[in-house]
Amino acid sequence: MIDFPPAEFEARLERIQALMTDAGMDAILLCTEAEVRYFSGFRTQFWQSPTRPWYLVLPRVGDPIAIIPEIGAELMRQTWVDDIRTWSSPDPVDDGVSLLVDTLYGFNKVGVPMGEEASLRVPLRDFNTVREKCPAQFVDCSEYIKAVRIVKSEAEIAILRDICAIGSAAFDRAPELFHTGQPLKQAFRDFKIALLQEGAEDVSYLVGAAGQGGYGDVISPPDMTPLETGDVLMLDTGSTLQGYFCDFDRNFAIGHADDEAKQAYETLWNSTEAGLEHARAGNTCADLFEAMHITLGGGSSDVGRYGHGLGIQLTEYPSIAAFDKTPLQAGMVMTLEPSLTISDGKMMVHEENILITEDAPVLLTKRAVPELPVIG
Amino acid sequence: MIDFPPAEFEARLERIQALMTDAGMDAILLCTEAEVRYFSGFRTQFWQSPTRPWYLVLPRVGDPIAIIPEIGAELMRQTWVDDIRTWSSPDPVDDGVSLLVDTLYGFNKVGVPMGEEASLRVPLRDFNTVREKCPAQFVDCSEYIKAVRIVKSEAEIAILRDICAIGSAAFDRAPELFHTGQPLKQAFRDFKIALLQEGAEDVSYLVGAAGQGGYGDVISPPDMTPLETGDVLMLDTGSTLQGYFCDFDRNFAIGHADDEAKQAYETLWNSTEAGLEHARAGNTCADLFEAMHITLGGGSSDVGRYGHGLGIQLTEYPSIAAFDKTPLQAGMVMTLEPSLTISDGKMMVHEENILITEDAPVLLTKRAVPELPVIG
Repeated sequence: MIDFPPAEFEARLERIQALMTDAGMDAILLCTEAEVRYFSGFRTQFWQSPTRPWYLVLPRVGDPIAIIPEIGAELMRQTWVDDIRTWSSPDPVDDGVSLLVDTLYGFNKVGVPMGEEASLRVPLRDFNTVREKCPAQFVDCSEYIKAVRIVKSEAEIAILRDICAIGSAAFDRAPELFHTGQPLKQAFRDFKIALLQEGAEDVSYLVGAAGQGGYGDVISPPDMTPLETGDVLMLDTGSTLQGYFCDFDRNFAIGHADDEAKQAYETLWNSTEAGLEHARAGNTCADLFEAMHITLGGGSSDVGRYGHGLGIQLTEYPSIAAFDKTPLQAGMVMTLEPSLTISDGKMMVHEENILITEDAPVLLTKRAVPELPVIG
Repeated sequence: MIDFPPAEFEARLERIQALMTDAGMDAILLCTEAEVRYFSGFRTQFWQSPTRPWYLVLPRVGDPIAIIPEIGAELMRQTWVDDIRTWSSPDPVDDGVSLLVDTLYGFNKVGVPMGEEASLRVPLRDFNTVREKCPAQFVDCSEYIKAVRIVKSEAEIAILRDICAIGSAAFDRAPELFHTGQPLKQAFRDFKIALLQEGAEDVSYLVGAAGQGGYGDVISPPDMTPLETGDVLMLDTGSTLQGYFCDFDRNFAIGHADDEAKQAYETLWNSTEAGLEHARAGNTCADLFEAMHITLGGGSSDVGRYGHGLGIQLTEYPSIAAFDKTPLQAGMVMTLEPSLTISDGKMMVHEENILITEDAPVLLTKRAVPELPVIG
């Protein structure tokens, strides 16, 4: 069995089935990597190939049904899913559509994630055919999926704790890894190797930037520009273990830190402290946002939020944002990610990963030092 | 400018606009990573966050229009796209929908990829709102996107050549990297590090397997099972350079190769030879499939095809399959990937990457040795 014992998946299914019962929903149809994996345990990087569709049907009563290309049958058999229906894919005429229509026969109301953060990882043409051929009513079920996934199990938390520790150990090696004159692209590569050496299984996500006293953009790939004295280097990694992400960054001053950069760093660090104080079950995401926002003294950035959920995706619901009234609950794993505009085109970001409890949150990342560290 | 000069993108746009003119299509709406990147040059791993939608509109006349979250504006300004329209995302009420509807005003017929290999990387709810609010007719444009992307430019081929060389150099280090007793998970990690050391920017995709004389599954993540004498170890990597993939595998016998495994390897190697002989402009994918299939002597597997296109995605159109009548053209980059069932639950795969020319194809990967190499 990959990653988790069957009891983990039984509990997930039970929770969604209870919500389906309340909503009068007969089945849920899933076709995206995160959702199929969450309910089946089917974990493979093969999703990077866009060619084949994969479906998982969760009936309101009974066990999940996988409708998948034959190439995935052997791996699916290693999960807790017993009902596996396959076809030889790719098939340009009928790429699993008939098999799916047959599977949905008899269901009157079928949920499909259609709302915030959802996508449709099958051709729209195929999905429309399924809708036409099934007499069922298709409705949005994003809220229900969200409600189940948002609280992590002990087993999930254990993995998230491990990958955050791995990320922290790699960042601890910054003084040996990064130095003046090093092209940013090389710094990225060296850091990826360090993450793997520390135990990450994949470095799916590494973005970052460097610039004098701050940086202009936080989602770019690196170029060959060498690190210079006075640069602030920021690296933000979503590395994975058993398909679970950490997502946090660290800032380092190269050789020298100017006062403006030190000040920005301190402001962000304090904003995170405020976040740690207010990240309590019962508070809403909006409350948490407000507490962090005040400490930034009106400085804002274009990131759009100060953190988010974390798990089998780099970012998950909810958002730490003024609009998000989601109550924090024990078992949620979140990032705290305040960002600050220093001056036109120059910003700084800071990020930690935490577990929400009934009491004070538990830091999963090793807390950043309170003053901008100077290395190199 | 990231990755390519503007002329590269101008040529891409020109080609799609010519097809749009023929089809009477006023604009094309894109929302997926590969398509947005292909036409804009916008390259970031930030797509791994499912939270924010990103749109690119290609009008039949004029330049592309990016409708994107503000967090991506700075990076988009580094591309050749000048018309960048942003909003503060995530916005639970209107996540770019109004901005997109305004942008599409005046277009009567809008293409959206809806067919084979396409997906919709925005909430279906939002897409439906756009359809309702725009008087335009929305039609499938998958074929046009495919027709443009299928032939690679000289600049793209140069990058693909480089990443294949990097992958080949990493595989050359197999004798030092893999050995009896090594857990498969460790072999994966060591190989990822080797790929990065050889120059890969990311190891997005690494799957593989090991088993006595063959393996049962080719898309699983690795476990802690140690490599044993008599195992065949297969590693299949999609590593990237500037966002372009190699996609090929190698097989290694650990300590000893049994006759059945040697025979299967030879058969697959010969099938690839047949592929190299028939991979000629003018032949169809089906012709190529047939030539490779004959050499396998009726042995088949569940993979569903013997190769595919390659570029900014791990797998691209077309498929080397009996159903795919796409004519091969000079400039297409393909994988040749025959697979063979050795016995029940035991298979072997082999893969090379090639460039189609008017004459013999050019191997981008360093050709595998003709006999199953024994290492460890």
